[in-house]
Amino acid sequence: MIVTIDRQYGSGGRLVGEKLAALLGYPFYDRELLKIAAQESGMHEDVVEHFDEKPVSSLLYSTYLYTTMSVTDALPLNQKLAFAQFDVIRKVAEKGSCVIVGRCADYVLQDRKDCFNVFISASRPVRHERLAKYYGIPEELAEKTIRKQDKMRSEYYNFFTQRKWGEASNYHLCVDAGLFSLDGAAELIAAAVRQLEEK
Amino acid sequence: MIVTIDRQYGSGGRLVGEKLAALLGYPFYDRELLKIAAQESGMHEDVVEHFDEKPVSSLLYSTYLYTTMSVTDALPLNQKLAFAQFDVIRKVAEKGSCVIVGRCADYVLQDRKDCFNVFISASRPVRHERLAKYYGIPEELAEKTIRKQDKMRSEYYNFFTQRKWGEASNYHLCVDAGLFSLDGAAELIAAAVRQLEEK
Repeated sequence: MIVTIDRQYGSGGRLVGEKLAALLGYPFYDRELLKIAAQESGMHEDVVEHFDEKPVSSLLYSTYLYTTMSVTDALPLNQKLAFAQFDVIRKVAEKGSCVIVGRCADYVLQDRKDCFNVFISASRPVRHERLAKYYGIPEELAEKTIRKQDKMRSEYYNFFTQRKWGEASNYHLCVDAGLFSLDGAAELIAAAVRQLEEK
Repeated sequence: MIVTIDRQYGSGGRLVGEKLAALLGYPFYDRELLKIAAQESGMHEDVVEHFDEKPVSSLLYSTYLYTTMSVTDALPLNQKLAFAQFDVIRKVAEKGSCVIVGRCADYVLQDRKDCFNVFISASRPVRHERLAKYYGIPEELAEKTIRKQDKMRSEYYNFFTQRKWGEASNYHLCVDAGLFSLDGAAELIAAAVRQLEEK
């Protein structure tokens, strides 16, 4: 079973994914995908990281585009980077059961029958607290940061998938990790995976 | 614990709610709310049913408004009906644990700490099949019916709650009842409720 996990910024989704992978004994892929994509595409890891889950038409991208290379060279770069990640996701999934975080993996693997798509959210207070605790972002900047990061993730997702990021009907299971705790959420998802495996 | 269940049209959400209520030994409220709202508001049951989960600004409403009564009398009627249902939801929740389907119950009960909000979806093929099997709606009309009914539910929900219907982050748990089966979905939600009760 391939479990894909998308997540609101600061919801603890990555950690839920890690805990889930540990519970199921599956390999876990989050930033690991970047390294493999960099290796396989021949691009520098910093470049791959720079574009990771960023919207295609961002100002950052346009600036990069017009200052560093010709339009012809540059236009396919963003897509090339995304597609390099998508290729890695497909290869990783072919190796067997795993947990993959973000990067439109639900969409990339949509034709597989063994793909289980999860979305992790959390309430604003929980996310603010996590931002302060784990990223050192003060309360007065938390809301702005959350909006900016969620916007980037949703624009990236919506562009490549033509779906709407965070809409319940795109996923098989959506869990509020704030209400259940990270361990509780991972246990719920593991129970769901086991129920599907028994089918 | 008060479990609220919202659901896409044809997803089997009502049945999941019934099965969940049976698993937990909770009373179940869906159309039952209409009867109580009619009794308590003094309005005829047909009128209450007519406006059930319908958008406030629908053409139907406008027609009703301008042909049957003066604007002054009519304006608060739709809200009066919704608020009668909301009152019933609050009263029902005060009596103790239960499962409530639809009618913005998640929003109405948002200040309670013991309220658990669920959303049920299902893929298009599953919903089309259910429409044919249970409502006798042929395949060629299924998509149109789904869009119309989901639109009414979302407009009703969005109007009263100022949130977006079907957005994962509004709910604590969203489950694809097509993937898990109705029994499987009910079991997953029951496991989640038990996890929260043990906290």
